[in-house]
Amino acid sequence: MAGLDPRLDLIPAVIRARAFRKFGRTLDGASAAALEFSRAFIDIVAPHVPAIKPQIAFFEQFGWPGFRAYCEAVAHAKKKGLIVIGDVKRGDIGTTMAAYADAHLGRVKVAGKLCEPIGADAITVTAYVGSDILAPFADYMAKEGKGIFVLVRTSNPSARDLQDITSRRELVYETMARYVTKWGAPYVGRSGYSAVCAVVGGTDPKAAAHLRRLMPKTIFLVPGFGAQGATSQDVTVCFKKDGSGAVVASSRAINYAYTLPPWKDLYGEKKWESAVEAAAIAANRELNRIML
Amino acid sequence: MAGLDPRLDLIPAVIRARAFRKFGRTLDGASAAALEFSRAFIDIVAPHVPAIKPQIAFFEQFGWPGFRAYCEAVAHAKKKGLIVIGDVKRGDIGTTMAAYADAHLGRVKVAGKLCEPIGADAITVTAYVGSDILAPFADYMAKEGKGIFVLVRTSNPSARDLQDITSRRELVYETMARYVTKWGAPYVGRSGYSAVCAVVGGTDPKAAAHLRRLMPKTIFLVPGFGAQGATSQDVTVCFKKDGSGAVVASSRAINYAYTLPPWKDLYGEKKWESAVEAAAIAANRELNRIML
Repeated sequence: MAGLDPRLDLIPAVIRARAFRKFGRTLDGASAAALEFSRAFIDIVAPHVPAIKPQIAFFEQFGWPGFRAYCEAVAHAKKKGLIVIGDVKRGDIGTTMAAYADAHLGRVKVAGKLCEPIGADAITVTAYVGSDILAPFADYMAKEGKGIFVLVRTSNPSARDLQDITSRRELVYETMARYVTKWGAPYVGRSGYSAVCAVVGGTDPKAAAHLRRLMPKTIFLVPGFGAQGATSQDVTVCFKKDGSGAVVASSRAINYAYTLPPWKDLYGEKKWESAVEAAAIAANRELNRIML
Repeated sequence: MAGLDPRLDLIPAVIRARAFRKFGRTLDGASAAALEFSRAFIDIVAPHVPAIKPQIAFFEQFGWPGFRAYCEAVAHAKKKGLIVIGDVKRGDIGTTMAAYADAHLGRVKVAGKLCEPIGADAITVTAYVGSDILAPFADYMAKEGKGIFVLVRTSNPSARDLQDITSRRELVYETMARYVTKWGAPYVGRSGYSAVCAVVGGTDPKAAAHLRRLMPKTIFLVPGFGAQGATSQDVTVCFKKDGSGAVVASSRAINYAYTLPPWKDLYGEKKWESAVEAAAIAANRELNRIML
């Protein structure tokens, strides 16, 4: 799976220049650049990946024009047949969480008329507030094939601060894994997997392997492949023996392949599209190789 | 402090009708209604409260036009001299969290030019990923008087799922309280309070009183006053003896006072503005009374 992180300073100069000519050095200009990059990127990777994971923060940083660009990028990816996992990490309670669920995955009722604000297939969520995050997604998961990815074990250095706290019986992230399994039980489909999924960082293979055993019916979203330092060997443990059970996300290493070896020398910024395609194909090949 | 939750079904009918006439039963229409309500609400409460806490989910539910309405509501509140605490509960790592910090509290660089996407004074954040949330806010807190409110103990029923896990020495929320104190130490100002603050639910006074003792230099944001069930007696424990140390948020009970006794009979929907003002004054009086 390809991540999509429109970082303005890494978007090819030709796209930025065009956007700034049209909209000035403004949030509108930055959002236009982010959207043009996103659309072009989606067109290139669509034949090679099943799903895309846009990181909303890199759109939201440009205020509401950025949020609009996010909505339009999601729509474009859907049109190209991709599954869209919105990396939004929302987490709140009651009617507030319901508003997020309706906004990102579902529909909102406006004077009796149903409108679809964004229309992603799944989003990432945070569950510091506990099980209360779940209810707003129930119908979307049971009836519409939508899903959520709950943060269980993240790939950052300070993940241990909270996630590695030991209670009498288990670590916090094991507790979270237990909840995800429990929450997901009613939503296991014909594939044998649940619509309640988990985010499991790829940078700690030991923890990931342990979680793979704990959560046999849970799909893992594994960030950190490529630029964040997780190797294909590291992420292997997130898959089951039949090669299913995980989607591995590579963001920077594909988005901005033109800045990284070997694509930097082979293509460079002018041929950034070729670099994206080559990097996507190479990532696929590497992941397929380790799963054989 | 007044919360601001633009729930479409509770926004007075006259405002909704006007917005739908102009923009149709669309996300634009819903967002226009949310913004008109927000502006009118802000005008009414501005003389009575120091701060406002808009809940972004109730704007985000209308997609990007809703997000735009949020930005415009924040700008309007700032113009009226209010402190704005954006209730956004973002929480992510590295450059992603930096993008959220720049978006909500700070500025983003667009081709060398600094743009301010939203401009709130503080936001709520989630720290499931640990200390890594902090760094992006350091300069905004140290140099610009901005702040963050970290979720420590939430007011919802399933808060206990994660927050009440017992480790060898302490509960998860006590651990989080310890982090907040540690993270906040470099940002204690002349008031004796830190820019790193805490969200502490008002519905569990025992936990709140305990946290008040644990965190003497931390300002509490206390949601749940009024409609969520926390009474003025419950929230008293969140203040220190000198009456400082907490901001109590009342959302529904003020926003939609016209639907609740005694304002429902006294004013009703047609005089919803009078109901808002009366409820804000009454909430102030109640909080002042218990602190004497």
